[in-house]
Amino acid sequence: MTPSSAPTLAKIGEFGLISRISTCVPSYENVITGIGDDASVTALSPGMQLLTSTDMLLEDVHFRRSWHDPLLLGRKSLAVSISDIAAMGGIPRWALLSLALPPALPLAFIDDFVRGFLAMATEHRVALIGGDTCSSRSGLAISVTIMGEQSPSRILRRSGAKPDDDIWVTGTLGDAALALNMLEKGETVSEDLLHRLLDPSPRVSAALALTEACLATAMIDVSDGVLADYGHIADLSSVGGCLNLADLPLSPAFRKHMSADSATVCRMALCGGEDYELCFTARPAMREKVAECMKKCGIAVTRIGIVTSSPEVTVVNPDGTPFNSQAEGFNHFT
Amino acid sequence: MTPSSAPTLAKIGEFGLISRISTCVPSYENVITGIGDDASVTALSPGMQLLTSTDMLLEDVHFRRSWHDPLLLGRKSLAVSISDIAAMGGIPRWALLSLALPPALPLAFIDDFVRGFLAMATEHRVALIGGDTCSSRSGLAISVTIMGEQSPSRILRRSGAKPDDDIWVTGTLGDAALALNMLEKGETVSEDLLHRLLDPSPRVSAALALTEACLATAMIDVSDGVLADYGHIADLSSVGGCLNLADLPLSPAFRKHMSADSATVCRMALCGGEDYELCFTARPAMREKVAECMKKCGIAVTRIGIVTSSPEVTVVNPDGTPFNSQAEGFNHFT
Repeated sequence: MTPSSAPTLAKIGEFGLISRISTCVPSYENVITGIGDDASVTALSPGMQLLTSTDMLLEDVHFRRSWHDPLLLGRKSLAVSISDIAAMGGIPRWALLSLALPPALPLAFIDDFVRGFLAMATEHRVALIGGDTCSSRSGLAISVTIMGEQSPSRILRRSGAKPDDDIWVTGTLGDAALALNMLEKGETVSEDLLHRLLDPSPRVSAALALTEACLATAMIDVSDGVLADYGHIADLSSVGGCLNLADLPLSPAFRKHMSADSATVCRMALCGGEDYELCFTARPAMREKVAECMKKCGIAVTRIGIVTSSPEVTVVNPDGTPFNSQAEGFNHFT
Repeated sequence: MTPSSAPTLAKIGEFGLISRISTCVPSYENVITGIGDDASVTALSPGMQLLTSTDMLLEDVHFRRSWHDPLLLGRKSLAVSISDIAAMGGIPRWALLSLALPPALPLAFIDDFVRGFLAMATEHRVALIGGDTCSSRSGLAISVTIMGEQSPSRILRRSGAKPDDDIWVTGTLGDAALALNMLEKGETVSEDLLHRLLDPSPRVSAALALTEACLATAMIDVSDGVLADYGHIADLSSVGGCLNLADLPLSPAFRKHMSADSATVCRMALCGGEDYELCFTARPAMREKVAECMKKCGIAVTRIGIVTSSPEVTVVNPDGTPFNSQAEGFNHFT
C-alpha cells in the first residue's frame, strides 16, 4: 500500500475508528452489552462489590511519543489502572478507553496502541466495554477507567495497618524512575531498566493471593514512590512507619548506578514514581506465610520496615542514623 | 484577600486539590469507600446490572472558556454523562471526574467548576467517588465516567425498535445547535437558547417513567442530532424510519429564526448536536399511555415519525416530498 492510499483517521472517521476497535474485542460472559450503545451493561458476580478507578495520561506530561512505542504505550495505559484494582485485592473486569487524538496521528499508531491495550486486557481477562474518541488540538490524551470486583471481606484498603505490622514491597524499586532520569539526560538506558518504565506488570496475581490467604492488613500500589505511597497507608491507618534504607529491594541494573551518587539513587528508589509494585503491611506472625505465598506466585517480596504507633514515617540508614530523603513523591502542579 | 495571597493550584498541589474536592462530596449509602484509596468501593442494589459510560470534553473542541461559565461547565460535564445512563433507562449512581488543568487556571475557576459538577450530581443523587488530576500543557481537559444501575428487564437499548413503532422525541430540537451557530458568528443569543446549549437537563425521570411503564422499545439520547441518533437505533434494530419534518418539535425561540433560512435551520433541528433529549420508539397502541406518562413527568413529547422495515432513514416535507438533509450528525475527525 502506498502512503497516499493508507487509511487515515480523517478517512475512517469517528465511527470507523470505533468499529475498528470494537471488532478486535473478544466477548466475555460478564459483558451483556459492550461497545455500541449509550452505556455498557455488565453483571457483577454474586456477592461482589464494585471497584472503580480512573487515570488520565497526557502526551509530554505522562509520556513522550519519541520514547514510547505505541504498542507499549497501549499496554501501559491499561496496566497502571489494573494496578489500582490489584492494590485493592480486586479482580479486574472491565475497562473504558477514551482517546483525544491529534488529527495528524497516523492510523498505524492508533492500531498499535489499541493492539497493546487489548493485549494487556486479554492477559488479565479485562473486557473493553466502551469509551470515547474525539479530536485533540494539542497532544494525545488518554483516559482509562477500570472496574473490578471482590467480595467485601477480601477488599484491601489503605486504612488497615496496625502498629508492629511489617511493611513489605514486591519486586524492586526505583528502576522506572532511574530509566526516566537517564532518558531525560539523553543517556543510553539498558533494556531491563527501560522495560520497567515502558511496560510495567500490574501485580494482580500476587495481590489476589495475599487477600485470599488473609495475609495483608493494608495495601497500595507504588506509583508515586514507596515513601509517599506508604505515607498514604500511614495517614489512612493513623499510624507511622520506619523504613530501612538497606532493605529496599534494588535490581542489579539499578545497583550498577548506585556507586556514582548513592544518595540521589536512593531517593529514586524511595521517591521515584511508576514502580507499580505492591506495598502492603502484614502481622509479624505472618512473615513465613507471606514469603511462601509470594514464592508460589513467582514474585519477589521484601520486608522494608515496620509500622509504628507514632505518626511519622522515617527512613533509617544501615547504621541506624536517620536518612534525610529531602523529597516527596511525585505531585502534579507543585 | 489580595490577589497575591489568593490560593493557587501550585500552592495547594495535587493532594490539596483532591482534598478540597472530596470535602464537598456528600456521603451516600451505596458508597462503601469513596475518594482516597486506590479504587472506590460501591455496592449495586440487589438484582441490578451495571451501566457504564464515559465522555471526554476538551477546551476549544467541546467548549470554549470564553463562552462557558465554569459553574455551568461543571454542570454540563456531568449532565452529558447522566444523559447516557438515562438513555438506557438506568438510575445514575456514581461518577468519576478526571481533570487535566493548565497550571495558570485560577483556583476560583476550578472551585466553580466543581461546585457546578457537584450541584448536578446532587440533583440526580449521583456520588462522586473518584477521579484523577494532572497538569495540562495545553487547555483544560475533562473526562467523566458515569455508572448507573437498572434491573435487566428494564434496561432499554438501541436495538429493540420494530417496524410500525412510533418514533418519539422529548422536548425541542436544534436549540443548542442554533445557539452554538450564533455564538460562532458573534451574534447575540437569547437566554433561552443559550440555556439549552450551556446547561442541558438530562431526561432521567422521563426515561425512568418510560421504562417502568414498559412503554419504549428502544431509546437513545440525542447528542449528535436526531437524524444520526435515530440512525443508530435503526442500525442496531435492523430497521429504517421515516421522520416528518413538519412534526419536529421546535421551541418558540428556535422558530423565530426559521423565516431567515428555513432549510439551514431545519438541518440544525435534524442534524445539530447537543439536544440531550430522548429519542425512543414505542408500539402505536401505546400512544396515549406515552403521552400521559410524559405529561406526568412534565416533559413535552412529540411523535416525529414511524419505524419502517426497509433499512433507510428518510425525512419527508409536509407535502410528502423527500427532504434532502445533505448532512449527517456531528462526527469527530471528518
